[in-house]
Amino acid sequence: MTLDKAAVGPDWDSLYATRMKRVAPSEIRERMRLINQHSLIHLGGGLPDPAIFAYDLLAEASAAILGDPARARLALQYAPSEGHLPLREWLTGYMASLGVPCGIENIVITNGSQQALDLIGKMLLDPGDVAAVEMPSFIGALRAFDAYQPQYIAIPEDTTATGATLAGAKLAYAGPDFRNPTGTTLTRAEREGLLTLAAAAGTPIVEDSCYEKLRFVGETIPSLLALGVARTGSIENAGVLYTGTFSKTIAPSLRVGWVAGPAAAVRKLTLLKQASDLATSALNQMVLLDVVRDHLDSEAVRMSAVYAERCGSMLDALARHMPADVSWTRPEGGLYVWVLLPEGMDGSRFAERALVERGVSTISGAAFYPSDPRKNTIRLSFSLASVQDAAEGIRRIAELVEEMRG
Amino acid sequence: MTLDKAAVGPDWDSLYATRMKRVAPSEIRERMRLINQHSLIHLGGGLPDPAIFAYDLLAEASAAILGDPARARLALQYAPSEGHLPLREWLTGYMASLGVPCGIENIVITNGSQQALDLIGKMLLDPGDVAAVEMPSFIGALRAFDAYQPQYIAIPEDTTATGATLAGAKLAYAGPDFRNPTGTTLTRAEREGLLTLAAAAGTPIVEDSCYEKLRFVGETIPSLLALGVARTGSIENAGVLYTGTFSKTIAPSLRVGWVAGPAAAVRKLTLLKQASDLATSALNQMVLLDVVRDHLDSEAVRMSAVYAERCGSMLDALARHMPADVSWTRPEGGLYVWVLLPEGMDGSRFAERALVERGVSTISGAAFYPSDPRKNTIRLSFSLASVQDAAEGIRRIAELVEEMRG
Repeated sequence: MTLDKAAVGPDWDSLYATRMKRVAPSEIRERMRLINQHSLIHLGGGLPDPAIFAYDLLAEASAAILGDPARARLALQYAPSEGHLPLREWLTGYMASLGVPCGIENIVITNGSQQALDLIGKMLLDPGDVAAVEMPSFIGALRAFDAYQPQYIAIPEDTTATGATLAGAKLAYAGPDFRNPTGTTLTRAEREGLLTLAAAAGTPIVEDSCYEKLRFVGETIPSLLALGVARTGSIENAGVLYTGTFSKTIAPSLRVGWVAGPAAAVRKLTLLKQASDLATSALNQMVLLDVVRDHLDSEAVRMSAVYAERCGSMLDALARHMPADVSWTRPEGGLYVWVLLPEGMDGSRFAERALVERGVSTISGAAFYPSDPRKNTIRLSFSLASVQDAAEGIRRIAELVEEMRG
Repeated sequence: MTLDKAAVGPDWDSLYATRMKRVAPSEIRERMRLINQHSLIHLGGGLPDPAIFAYDLLAEASAAILGDPARARLALQYAPSEGHLPLREWLTGYMASLGVPCGIENIVITNGSQQALDLIGKMLLDPGDVAAVEMPSFIGALRAFDAYQPQYIAIPEDTTATGATLAGAKLAYAGPDFRNPTGTTLTRAEREGLLTLAAAAGTPIVEDSCYEKLRFVGETIPSLLALGVARTGSIENAGVLYTGTFSKTIAPSLRVGWVAGPAAAVRKLTLLKQASDLATSALNQMVLLDVVRDHLDSEAVRMSAVYAERCGSMLDALARHMPADVSWTRPEGGLYVWVLLPEGMDGSRFAERALVERGVSTISGAAFYPSDPRKNTIRLSFSLASVQDAAEGIRRIAELVEEMRG
């Protein structure tokens, strides 16, 4: 018996898989710990505001399901890996209402859209494969894909420019509506351009639709999937894996999202889902279905109105307080505003000082780039702070801009 | 615009990652679809019996949480990736009661123990790495690890034999108590032998404890982790990642399990958990905590008593009906009996005919081997069928043995 070796255990550092070199703590998540520890003005993390969740609807649905013996048995047993059938059926109707006729074979349920991104990365990416992403991009997508060790390239900003290409990319990840972190929206022409590039390259588009229902300005633009269906006649040929979630419109902690895509790819994602965690909670799927069936649109409208007011107030405060060499995006929905600080000002240092010296949480923009970040950027979220707090927070960080310039 | 290409979409088959060659439908899961479609005697799938879940306790906990505004806010917002803090605190006490003193930094919450296995494979396995498993082994573990493309070797059946080794293995996956599929239990000496082999090789043990609380015969044997702690003085050095779950003792569909292990490895698993699906449902973690805090032991005892009776009745029926050249295991707990059919009889063909001709679902044993299956094997589960149905099912498949022999 080798007691010496036993006494210190395995040499873990020599055992980790190669992918672990890329798995590191997220600045955002680390910062979010602080949120629980201090009294801050929260312009950082992009959490939905729990003050506006539909508690009564969820409590009612939960009690109705657990109080009915037949439904309770279904709710507490393992769900099928592809998801609770009535929810998948409901989603085919929902997708049809978005211009995407499809069948249940085109829908797999996931634990929020984060798991959808993980499973899609797992399905498509070998080490060294090329993943095309918007720069900057949702950090959760980068973290999910990182585990499969791709190389990243940027989706061309102008998809119609000469030489623009996605050639060689195994996937192209895009958030068309008010995306995280920039809050910007792809125009219809930009969506068509991306579809054309992707079709030319034979590259599937991974469409992150998680904010789609939180539009509060302007007209809805069809999703990349809907436009792909319009071009090709079918979800089978549209070349898009669409990821959806109820986390932003109902409540995140039910952890229910979905992928809509070609049946063969959805079948493979289902097998990966099964190997990853067998199934999503049947209870949570059933509770959500009871709520969204009658209330999804009204809940989305109600939440969008709250975020619209907060966004407007944040944009007003930025206009009032920020110096002329600071610019920012004007989102038509979602939760985020992207701020360009004066050239040469470091967003990481800025976010650090805003937190420590001014009691305002923001997120450094650098975290959202897989490499070569644009450093003079920060992301603000208007989801959590009250109108008054956000205005005060902006006032304080505008002061910090002047101070750091000096 | 390349309309022709767009019209058929990407060439998906050329895009899948290498790992997808190993991702195939599970015979068990495919067979479980049939269970929902026909009236059968269910000796196949290993589902817990939903007739005995603690509906009242779960409904009460759920109503209490969603009815209390402060708790409801916590329950519906994103949970921390490492899990709901009070549940992790409770688990440190639970693990201590099993002989494993530890802190919250040693515990990460997962979606059942299936996700724990996936994350552990993701953390440790590069393509071609060696994973040591029991043969036969839990199919869900093989499917989880398959995605990371290991080579499998067998954990030596006699860990104290000359030349027995785990050398080169990145992990050794073992189910010490009434494991799926064999229902067999490692003796204390066998556990000590495995710990010694693993320590000599520097190989971490992945301990699947999912049936641990469902013992109905004999004395509890300390877990591999508890024995490792006794040897080395600390969970940090014990060389074991322990995976636990409430799926078998409370209800599967809450999808809550955990890993207990060294803090540094648990931190890495937490990062992988975050990249995979952000967090497990806070609501489900809170509901479970309310139930297990006061009722885990009594629920486990109540369920074990039900399974004990069914197991006894199945063993009686096997003794009554099976010919002399059929043998089987005598489990001390859990949900499974492993049957050796007469030499040369094919378990896959047998399971097929039992299902189609006799209306009895069983599982071919071959599915539980990564390669070179022992073909004359089937797995029976006593979890779902009534005592009467199980006896009738055994009578029918004993007839089939005679018929297939002829």
